Amino acid sequence: MAAEQRRPDLAAMIVPLGRALMAAELPILRAHGLTMWAYAVLLRLDEDPVRSQAALAESIGADKTRIIDVLNDLEARGLLLRRPDPADRRVRLLSLTPEGRRTRDATQTAIQSRENHLLTRHLPAPQRAAFLTALHTLATLPPSELGSQEE
Amino acid sequence: MAAEQRRPDLAAMIVPLGRALMAAELPILRAHGLTMWAYAVLLRLDEDPVRSQAALAESIGADKTRIIDVLNDLEARGLLLRRPDPADRRVRLLSLTPEGRRTRDATQTAIQSRENHLLTRHLPAPQRAAFLTALHTLATLPPSELGSQEE
Repeated sequence: MAAEQRRPDLAAMIVPLGRALMAAELPILRAHGLTMWAYAVLLRLDEDPVRSQAALAESIGADKTRIIDVLNDLEARGLLLRRPDPADRRVRLLSLTPEGRRTRDATQTAIQSRENHLLTRHLPAPQRAAFLTALHTLATLPPSELGSQEE
Repeated sequence: MAAEQRRPDLAAMIVPLGRALMAAELPILRAHGLTMWAYAVLLRLDEDPVRSQAALAESIGADKTRIIDVLNDLEARGLLLRRPDPADRRVRLLSLTPEGRRTRDATQTAIQSRENHLLTRHLPAPQRAAFLTALHTLATLPPSELGSQEE
């Protein structure tokens, strides 16, 4: 492969870009009083209710003990509800309050508005659409598909 | 923003994808006797010579002390050359040997062949081209451009 035909490796482009985009989220999250983990919890709980703190921690890739403080804080601020499952009182169902949903929406709208500005400024419209579609396709592949296609 | 119109945040798609792509590189790197940092060093040195270990460490985002072992190992294996700068004997110029270049090329060819398989399997050709172009554009933006367009 001659040097002039070479492109950078995908990970070499994607990993630093992901890091920069996460850093760009931080001031927006701070403005909404959220840490990155708190935001991950709000996003996760909006999709569907979660039946335990352990299940929630696992589904967002967080440490189980680390997530407790985040949940306590969100509950104290009235953004999150923990209540016993009527079907099994030992299980605590986690869900968002309407205020939790509003905070989530406002934060995500601000984040994506900044992202859309960025994409609009640097990518022509058809390329932008193709990029988002392709990214969504790749991001929803099972990990095995990304890692083992030649084994 | 109604739920059905929402897309995931860019970082939420890009960060896990980057992690998965890096994980997919590991068996290939191992097969070529390289760690992730050793590969980063080979890639960096191929572009142009670097005038000091500190400069090299900084340009790949590595810890200065951590990189020493990597450089020692690459030098012991005949992949890397450290020699005094004729213009300033206190400075050690770092460059790749022909064997270092061959190892770099073989590794990158294997990594990108796997990546191209993945892209070909999941993205139609025009979308694939647009994705790579857009990704390259975004990955080469200055960090300030990614993080501060509305401040």
